[in-house]
Amino acid sequence: MRLFVKLQYNGRGFHGFQYQHGQRTVQGEIERILSKIHKSFVRIHPASRTDSGVHALEQCIHFDTTLSIPADHWEFMLNRYLPADISVTDTAEVNESFHARYDAEGKTYRYKIYHTKYKNPFYIGLKTHYPKVLDKEKMQRAMVPFVGRHDFTSFSSAKGAVKDKEREITEFQLFETEDGFEFVVTGTGFLYNMVRVMVAYVLEVGEGKREADTINIINQRERTLVPGTAPAEGLYLERIYYGTVQ
Amino acid sequence: MRLFVKLQYNGRGFHGFQYQHGQRTVQGEIERILSKIHKSFVRIHPASRTDSGVHALEQCIHFDTTLSIPADHWEFMLNRYLPADISVTDTAEVNESFHARYDAEGKTYRYKIYHTKYKNPFYIGLKTHYPKVLDKEKMQRAMVPFVGRHDFTSFSSAKGAVKDKEREITEFQLFETEDGFEFVVTGTGFLYNMVRVMVAYVLEVGEGKREADTINIINQRERTLVPGTAPAEGLYLERIYYGTVQ
Repeated sequence: MRLFVKLQYNGRGFHGFQYQHGQRTVQGEIERILSKIHKSFVRIHPASRTDSGVHALEQCIHFDTTLSIPADHWEFMLNRYLPADISVTDTAEVNESFHARYDAEGKTYRYKIYHTKYKNPFYIGLKTHYPKVLDKEKMQRAMVPFVGRHDFTSFSSAKGAVKDKEREITEFQLFETEDGFEFVVTGTGFLYNMVRVMVAYVLEVGEGKREADTINIINQRERTLVPGTAPAEGLYLERIYYGTVQ
Repeated sequence: MRLFVKLQYNGRGFHGFQYQHGQRTVQGEIERILSKIHKSFVRIHPASRTDSGVHALEQCIHFDTTLSIPADHWEFMLNRYLPADISVTDTAEVNESFHARYDAEGKTYRYKIYHTKYKNPFYIGLKTHYPKVLDKEKMQRAMVPFVGRHDFTSFSSAKGAVKDKEREITEFQLFETEDGFEFVVTGTGFLYNMVRVMVAYVLEVGEGKREADTINIINQRERTLVPGTAPAEGLYLERIYYGTVQ
């Protein structure tokens, strides 16, 4: 049986999603628990890997099991054994042809910043401190041109190995909170660090460090035009979209 | 010069407020920074000590300094040197007769619980998980009789050393949040663990484990009638009241 699992995690205590020998990772924790339950190694497949310190309000994985445990009982059992910083929110049986990564049709990320003068002790690892006066309209003007299908070379990490840098952004919104802002971006796919570079650029526009020049920067396909990358702690994987399972 | 300082801290990383040799405490961290700045030992005096894991949205301290640094510059300087889980929100010069503890005329505490089925990875150490159906009206009925001047022996820890157990509660309110409740209690003084025992009792009434019988329990002055103590992680010292300084 192939099992589909939705989960949340607080990225603060993990060296990212992907298994790394000798490091605490989300994949490592889940595979350790599953392998104990199965008494043999179980490999999980995520919709998306997240970097060290990045959170998930919704991440999806799948794995294969030979145990005859009903899908809905898995939720209870996994939450019983998983550490407190990972929580399973849903489980379902899926077709053996389903793949959490290859069948994902889109993703939403949220990026949280706050701009009080000093750091808030209750936001450690959960929001990025950005103590600058930010112009909301300037930021929104810089955000609009991202929506659409573009080559995002200028807004991704040079470390990314993928050749095809074309991606489609369907939504890029800004919400004002009590003491800061949240960016919400949805797309069919994202390059390495793409959301964090986009946010770093929009924040620089917002504080008046640079002028909004989004289309030009996109068209130049040149990574060095936006040197910044917003810190991991403000980033949340928020939703994965599938045609069939949800 | 006597300096009055308002601060916040996230209790998760501390073994309480009070200095303890070999443990990370709020007092220990602040005295270490101040002693470094002064190049000699500086003792601080808090309005209230908080237990291990308990947070402060507002705590007040005072200390004496011989340095000629203006009061408002202390805020900047302390925030520069203090760790990220302590934050100074205000500083002021006060009369040498002022004492953060003895001049405090009252305090407000807040207690946060959430009741989703499974633990929320983003609330670790910040809210108490209480996955029960709670009857708001029953809880409110149990809360009303606390307001007033009473002997609170039945609602405090047996560990408390104080002889006089009479205290005055001026406010005890319940607020519903997105996924739980917050209790807000104000009084002129509190016995050891008093808020956490009161909350544990009200929650037991709310889930139907016991009937509301507040006046009777108060009148019996018997600690064993309410055996529970709500966990530290949900408790926040929220405000200290002074007649003169604020």
